[in-house]
Amino acid sequence: MNGPINTKRALVLFSGGQDSTAFLAWALNNFDEVIAFTFDYDQRHKIELIQALKICKMLDVEQEAMKIDIFSQLSENSLTHDLEITPGTNSKLPSTFVPGRNLVFLSLAAAKAYQLGIKDIVIGVCQTDYSGYPDCRENFIKSMEKTISLSMDTEFRIHTPLMFLSKGETVLMMNDLGKLDWLKETHTCYEGKRPACGKCPACLLRLKGFEEAGIQDPLAYS
Amino acid sequence: MNGPINTKRALVLFSGGQDSTAFLAWALNNFDEVIAFTFDYDQRHKIELIQALKICKMLDVEQEAMKIDIFSQLSENSLTHDLEITPGTNSKLPSTFVPGRNLVFLSLAAAKAYQLGIKDIVIGVCQTDYSGYPDCRENFIKSMEKTISLSMDTEFRIHTPLMFLSKGETVLMMNDLGKLDWLKETHTCYEGKRPACGKCPACLLRLKGFEEAGIQDPLAYS
Repeated sequence: MNGPINTKRALVLFSGGQDSTAFLAWALNNFDEVIAFTFDYDQRHKIELIQALKICKMLDVEQEAMKIDIFSQLSENSLTHDLEITPGTNSKLPSTFVPGRNLVFLSLAAAKAYQLGIKDIVIGVCQTDYSGYPDCRENFIKSMEKTISLSMDTEFRIHTPLMFLSKGETVLMMNDLGKLDWLKETHTCYEGKRPACGKCPACLLRLKGFEEAGIQDPLAYS
Repeated sequence: MNGPINTKRALVLFSGGQDSTAFLAWALNNFDEVIAFTFDYDQRHKIELIQALKICKMLDVEQEAMKIDIFSQLSENSLTHDLEITPGTNSKLPSTFVPGRNLVFLSLAAAKAYQLGIKDIVIGVCQTDYSGYPDCRENFIKSMEKTISLSMDTEFRIHTPLMFLSKGETVLMMNDLGKLDWLKETHTCYEGKRPACGKCPACLLRLKGFEEAGIQDPLAYS
């Protein structure tokens, strides 16, 4: 971790998930003021939105939400429809893939940031665990940063504190920040269960991260 | 005008306006198959959407529409709210400016194009008449083209046939394509009137273009 970034306000794309809460913690440590920005996009699991709200209240972080019904209009996929969930491999995109999702999220976040007079945007994309999503890679983020800056004649910065961290390293980062207990409220389970199922690909990936870090997950499992 | 582009299908961002119909004509002349893509984004004037549908039917062009209520959530501006309309100058953005509008439109168009298996996107941005909108300039479009390509690992191309044309040259292009009569159905008037008011900044700009071209506007004015 580098030292605090010497700017004022940041807009943090915040879903309420484990990674999301980790980079929210990072942002709170690095900016004077943080606004959490949450998309309500017909996620299969409203529990994610409920937990996002709960975490923001718990941390006294201002939250802005935007309702978008774009993805259900764009494509059939298992994050917004009841299709079978298949984990991704290097050669095949996972069924939860919404092509261009981060492209759309970052475009909207940039427009929102402009409206709020904010130049720093934080997103938790991660090249290490990117599971075949091209819009989680650093070359996309760098290009996007330039594009949003040109689009509104404003020098935006996109921060990606998790870009090169493994799941285990993200857990260790939270431990270093003294915020491990925040992960108790984060939603990960693809099945939308709370306590979490502990068996779906998302739960297994989460548990693997804690195992790598040698730290006990504070989340309740069934 | 260059000769026809040797590809198959194009997605054309089509609003139903004069410029929009001009680059739709250009696309029909340059691609084997054209799909018109229209955003229903709480425009002040639904007449624009009605004319867009009418023109597509008239030309037997397939139309896809996407309903988005993003801009009303993003900012107060005169395209979606009843504020006073002020023309733009070089130093001040016009009140119809929705910051990041083309950024958001092109992100959504790219996601839609990916879904349809289309790599060619046509948009009618124009640097000549850009009235202070930074996301109408060529440097933004070039950067966006790279960004959307990286976001979905697909080599997209963004075509901007009007980029360096004046309003008068656009009218002459339609004349050259033998499609001048199509402009009879296009909507331009900011007041949402049909017959058009002939007095608002949009009508005046349109009329100036026809005057420059030395051609009579086929649109009915009150």
